[in-house]
Amino acid sequence: MKTGQIITLLTDFGLSDPYVGMMKGVIAGIAPEVPVIDLTHQVRPQDIQEACFLLQNSYRHFPTGTIFVCVVDPGVGTERLPVLVKSSEHFFVGPDNGLFGFLNTDPSKIIRELKNERFFRTPVSHTFHGRDIFAPVAAHLAAEGETILSELGPVRSDLVDIAGRLPDITGDAVKGKIVHIDRFGNLITNIHEKLLSELSFEPDKGIIRFREFSLPLVSTFSEAPEATPCALIGSSSHLEIFIKNGNAEKTLNAQTGETVYVYKHHG
Amino acid sequence: MKTGQIITLLTDFGLSDPYVGMMKGVIAGIAPEVPVIDLTHQVRPQDIQEACFLLQNSYRHFPTGTIFVCVVDPGVGTERLPVLVKSSEHFFVGPDNGLFGFLNTDPSKIIRELKNERFFRTPVSHTFHGRDIFAPVAAHLAAEGETILSELGPVRSDLVDIAGRLPDITGDAVKGKIVHIDRFGNLITNIHEKLLSELSFEPDKGIIRFREFSLPLVSTFSEAPEATPCALIGSSSHLEIFIKNGNAEKTLNAQTGETVYVYKHHG
Amino acid sequence: MKTGQIITLLTDFGLSDPYVGMMKGVIAGIAPEVPVIDLTHQVRPQDIQEACFLLQNSYRHFPTGTIFVCVVDPGVGTERLPVLVKSSEHFFVGPDNGLFGFLNTDPSKIIRELKNERFFRTPVSHTFHGRDIFAPVAAHLAAEGETILSELGPVRSDLVDIAGRLPDITGDAVKGKIVHIDRFGNLITNIHEKLLSELSFEPDKGIIRFREFSLPLVSTFSEAPEATPCALIGSSSHLEIFIKNGNAEKTLNAQTGETVYVYKHHG
Repeated sequence: MKTGQIITLLTDFGLSDPYVGMMKGVIAGIAPEVPVIDLTHQVRPQDIQEACFLLQNSYRHFPTGTIFVCVVDPGVGTERLPVLVKSSEHFFVGPDNGLFGFLNTDPSKIIRELKNERFFRTPVSHTFHGRDIFAPVAAHLAAEGETILSELGPVRSDLVDIAGRLPDITGDAVKGKIVHIDRFGNLITNIHEKLLSELSFEPDKGIIRFREFSLPLVSTFSEAPEATPCALIGSSSHLEIFIKNGNAEKTLNAQTGETVYVYKHHG
Repeated sequence: MKTGQIITLLTDFGLSDPYVGMMKGVIAGIAPEVPVIDLTHQVRPQDIQEACFLLQNSYRHFPTGTIFVCVVDPGVGTERLPVLVKSSEHFFVGPDNGLFGFLNTDPSKIIRELKNERFFRTPVSHTFHGRDIFAPVAAHLAAEGETILSELGPVRSDLVDIAGRLPDITGDAVKGKIVHIDRFGNLITNIHEKLLSELSFEPDKGIIRFREFSLPLVSTFSEAPEATPCALIGSSSHLEIFIKNGNAEKTLNAQTGETVYVYKHHG
Repeated sequence: MKTGQIITLLTDFGLSDPYVGMMKGVIAGIAPEVPVIDLTHQVRPQDIQEACFLLQNSYRHFPTGTIFVCVVDPGVGTERLPVLVKSSEHFFVGPDNGLFGFLNTDPSKIIRELKNERFFRTPVSHTFHGRDIFAPVAAHLAAEGETILSELGPVRSDLVDIAGRLPDITGDAVKGKIVHIDRFGNLITNIHEKLLSELSFEPDKGIIRFREFSLPLVSTFSEAPEATPCALIGSSSHLEIFIKNGNAEKTLNAQTGETVYVYKHHG
């Protein structure tokens, strides 16, 4: 796998502080030729599940060998491990706190704990491992290549996962939840379109339910009725809830974590 | 015209979602050497006129051959056409929904409908042509050069324009509107300084009117009186309304779309 | 000193306007190979002290020769001078209004007033020197190297500084203030950890006081008690006030400029 084409950043640091800029400064000092792309820095503070969802839905759009630096890290400075994961196609660097749990199903993954201070910016701050551990490790990987993997630290066998990350499936029903709300107020669930296929879901026979609403399933925003909560499979291949020419988040006062049901049959 | 120096992005996607990052990932997979610059991603959702205004006032500051990818696209998935426009100096890629209407006055423009799936990311999503059509077409243009133009799809002759994009001029009066509000709360109109010249407008003889206010016209923020709505020709060469050391948007509870008049004579 | 590796931008322009994009377009036209990194564009409007604090805490993380373009410029178009400062390790370009006052202690600094229009984008706007003076000067420096310094304009000997930029030290007490509030609502003061060392501050003998609170000093967020304002030395080596799993800014309705005291002894 070719490394170092791109480093991609995903954090909950926001853009009003210079934290992201500092990480880019550290990267530029080690790997000046490597382009850095922002995935987003506006994950809700410390929301590991949202970050994991956004990462999982985004990484396939990046070239093979991309290095994803992910820093949503409420446990910074405590016992959670800093890791680098090599999957079949990409690299992931960050805290092992659930962010990378979806990679457990990749049998070819290689996990290294990050212990070797040669690849760190020292002294390492207690509160900003993004700048002092994760950014420099990613930059060294980009600049020096995969040969550094064996020097980073001990091999680990599994990644921490998030309880309730995937929907519950019981007979003919799927119980999922809202895991992300986008800028337009669309409520994005963790229910992948594959689950609807596996359920042999048919819109005219089944029901998509959110609170007291039964949601029509449409295929484009424009074909939906006005002022009515509707569902569609969004660009990330997950079920999402929206209101045409409106804002579902505000109109419904919706929150992440709320439950969404899909039933194969009425009644 | 030299192509592919830069790709510039203008969208209403915001930065809290990974949509913009995904577009950059797709571009990096096709044209890894090409720098990508963000113009802004915070156009108000689906506000084609604001996006058009911002684009029109920005593109001249970019080098010849820059490719502008513009995605404010309420009609995504419906009959509006995806297009690439080659103007005399730049390239523009996006939906033909009014975003590019100001280019109709360029006699050398060449318009291609985007139909050839070879230049798309497939399968094309119903809801995210920015990632699946516009970003990859721009990246292929940057990487392969102008020779791909003839392969993209059929030639079109004119672009959709926005009704009321430009001010109305009646005798000695100009009737414009607020089309953008900046971070400082300054209210930016579609009245270009050229219109004032054409009107032979003189500050001591004419009037600039917004609601009940007659606005003094000053040349720098600092020479304005405090706590008073004033007008100046801003950095985009358009008339804007501001309050010194204050926020005109909040103080006046102003909205885009509100009318602003310029009269050559008092009374 | 090697120049032109990187240009870094720090402004109060926000990201909802295309101002930052325009500056990047101007840079790309002059120095297309030079990467541009955003430090932040969300300095509170016209808050020179906040910008200065963020710059001072960030610049050391960037490679030698980095060019910092800083535009928080309430006096644009008036008598404040546009300058370029060469310090022992970096370059700084912007208005001489206090942004760069911390560089006065660098005996090797060289200051040039920017007067030579050859390095400007002309005509120069009255309201946007970021685009028309500071960005193009930085880009010419990156592209052409240090030899242009002598052509920029006359040498100046000192930089404007901000009154009250540093804490007051009186006997065994330090009187500082909040100068920045980060995305997590942490209140960051201008009290550097060195001041605590110089005071021989010991947590069990001294007091950190904010309003009516005596703040425990901890070394990581996670070891703090819940729901209690606490202090720690943050990643920028300054004392900051936080509430574990909470938001100190919102809970305390805190503002920048508020006073924070450190006393060596109780009572």
